[in-house]
Amino acid sequence: MKKSSNTSAISQSNSIPASANVSNTSAEKIKSLRKKKQDHTEILKRLLQGNQTALGKAITLVESNTIKHQQQASAIIEGAIASSGKSIRIGITGVPGVGKSTFIEAFGTYLLSLGKKVAVLAVDPSSSISKGSILGDKTRMENLVKQEMAFIRPSPSGDSLGGVARKTRESIMLCEATGFDVILIETVGVGQSETTVHSMCDFFLLLKLAGAGDELQGIKRGIMEMADAIVINKADGENVKAANTAKLDFRRALHLYPPKESGWTPKVLLSSALYNTGIPEVWELIMSFEKNSKENGYFEENRKQQNKFWLLQSINEQLKQSFYQNPEIKVALEEQLQAIFDKKTSPFIAAQQLLEKYSKL
Amino acid sequence: MKKSSNTSAISQSNSIPASANVSNTSAEKIKSLRKKKQDHTEILKRLLQGNQTALGKAITLVESNTIKHQQQASAIIEGAIASSGKSIRIGITGVPGVGKSTFIEAFGTYLLSLGKKVAVLAVDPSSSISKGSILGDKTRMENLVKQEMAFIRPSPSGDSLGGVARKTRESIMLCEATGFDVILIETVGVGQSETTVHSMCDFFLLLKLAGAGDELQGIKRGIMEMADAIVINKADGENVKAANTAKLDFRRALHLYPPKESGWTPKVLLSSALYNTGIPEVWELIMSFEKNSKENGYFEENRKQQNKFWLLQSINEQLKQSFYQNPEIKVALEEQLQAIFDKKTSPFIAAQQLLEKYSKL
Repeated sequence: MKKSSNTSAISQSNSIPASANVSNTSAEKIKSLRKKKQDHTEILKRLLQGNQTALGKAITLVESNTIKHQQQASAIIEGAIASSGKSIRIGITGVPGVGKSTFIEAFGTYLLSLGKKVAVLAVDPSSSISKGSILGDKTRMENLVKQEMAFIRPSPSGDSLGGVARKTRESIMLCEATGFDVILIETVGVGQSETTVHSMCDFFLLLKLAGAGDELQGIKRGIMEMADAIVINKADGENVKAANTAKLDFRRALHLYPPKESGWTPKVLLSSALYNTGIPEVWELIMSFEKNSKENGYFEENRKQQNKFWLLQSINEQLKQSFYQNPEIKVALEEQLQAIFDKKTSPFIAAQQLLEKYSKL
Repeated sequence: MKKSSNTSAISQSNSIPASANVSNTSAEKIKSLRKKKQDHTEILKRLLQGNQTALGKAITLVESNTIKHQQQASAIIEGAIASSGKSIRIGITGVPGVGKSTFIEAFGTYLLSLGKKVAVLAVDPSSSISKGSILGDKTRMENLVKQEMAFIRPSPSGDSLGGVARKTRESIMLCEATGFDVILIETVGVGQSETTVHSMCDFFLLLKLAGAGDELQGIKRGIMEMADAIVINKADGENVKAANTAKLDFRRALHLYPPKESGWTPKVLLSSALYNTGIPEVWELIMSFEKNSKENGYFEENRKQQNKFWLLQSINEQLKQSFYQNPEIKVALEEQLQAIFDKKTSPFIAAQQLLEKYSKL
């Protein structure tokens, strides 16, 4: 197909009367399919050339729930995948109010000044309910949003964290194929979203406030163990003393955990996104992590394991979905649960009976 | 059926020649089935009367992998379930060398002195491989093993933690139906076994050594967060000072975690199983936990949730097993994994293709 021509063979022959065998609607349908095919081929081509508009369109297809869009998205991903993987993926989490947007604004702007191309994605499974997606209010990243080398995308909506995660994972690949060097994946930390983000990034950064001891208690189960670095934000003005105390507390707390597979010892840093201090140090730390983990082979191995994890995760999710969404199983499950609570059966016997029923459906 | 008669109708009519329609083998088969039926009915009856030999036989059926034994086990469990649930289930974990056996020996002996009936079970998924099951060497609990009111059972063997867990869960029910007041579930902490034990007990106890700071590092991910109490064992002689330091360290570390759903604040205690000190305090603590959690409704709710967890867990396990053990899927999965590593497909597209294949098998 000639690239200069945007009209298909079918539209060129439009003036010729359709034969008796081809109805007008069929012709339209074929034209539309050809157009779509051309569309996503074109999107892929421009995306691979570094075009951000094409990237935006591709992500929109990934985020769409219609089957047609999903098929187009899959085709784009398959074409983009060989060019993906060359970025460093950084997960960033912290409770609301910790200053994630301000930090990302300052951090992203610094990376741009180093000549990096920066993409910011978000995982917020609550956004589909509250419609109050993080990053939705782009004015919170006033500077970054204006920069040509930055790409900012709010959290996709989704019925489940699994759905949001899938979309974000595939968006990461697309951003990489478009040539972005640094992918920042922000999460507000609803439910399991931090674990999810952790399993799609190379480096996991926990933002904390320069508050005192009480702050420590707000840490969700398992989050601190996942962190490669804790950055105490808003370490400025009157907060400096408290921030230094917190730094020692966190360092001691991190010391309690077993060594990481990566061989990396998590660090605690101070920063003030407002006064723009401590930001280069965070990047230096990440660079040093990347160097170490590439040298000892952990970087590649971790990505391999993450890919495997996502494959198995998707399979398991869908196996469960088919079972639990079956209307007959739904009813039988409630009955068995009640029988367990009434001490009439054991969980294992109940499970066996449900699976037997399922296999006969 | 008359309880006094141990012979079936068939064996009584044995002297009468078999009719032409009933072959000798068929008659034997029927007799054998009747015998079995009587057997497990008898086991159940005696178990409910508090007979430990019957309990042992019932657990042997639960642990067996033959279908016939499994069916008998299910029948016994269904008959025993209404009488189960009246114990307190205490999970006990700690690294090898921490003195678990000595602690359980001292703790169990103390409970017996209070007139309690004590069962000790174990979850050790490694035992099927190493055959070196914990509790296997009963001489390690010399005193306890001699006591009439104590029942000690080594870890069942199993191909997977799931299998071991199922057997242990059902054994707990059987012990309770036999009248045991306190169930101690020991785990050596291989892989996920601590999480598994945590999800089948009311109270979770982490044994630690009276070592210094370095000891803290040996704590596996998530274990400290699950503990309702940390007992620093071997707090005697020259260790006393170090034990007190460790106590403060652990108390500080526990303070970092979010409050528990049970409303319970985990405590740190010192004990010496060797010198028999601190043992009554551990029991007092557990009694106070039981009182609190029964008053605020957590105790019952937690058991309900655990039952639900085990139901869903068994279902999910078996759904996965059917999928991953399918020979055609096995081959296709390897191919897709390779394609992902070779950057030819994404994990999600691969998952979709595998599920489509599976649904057509």
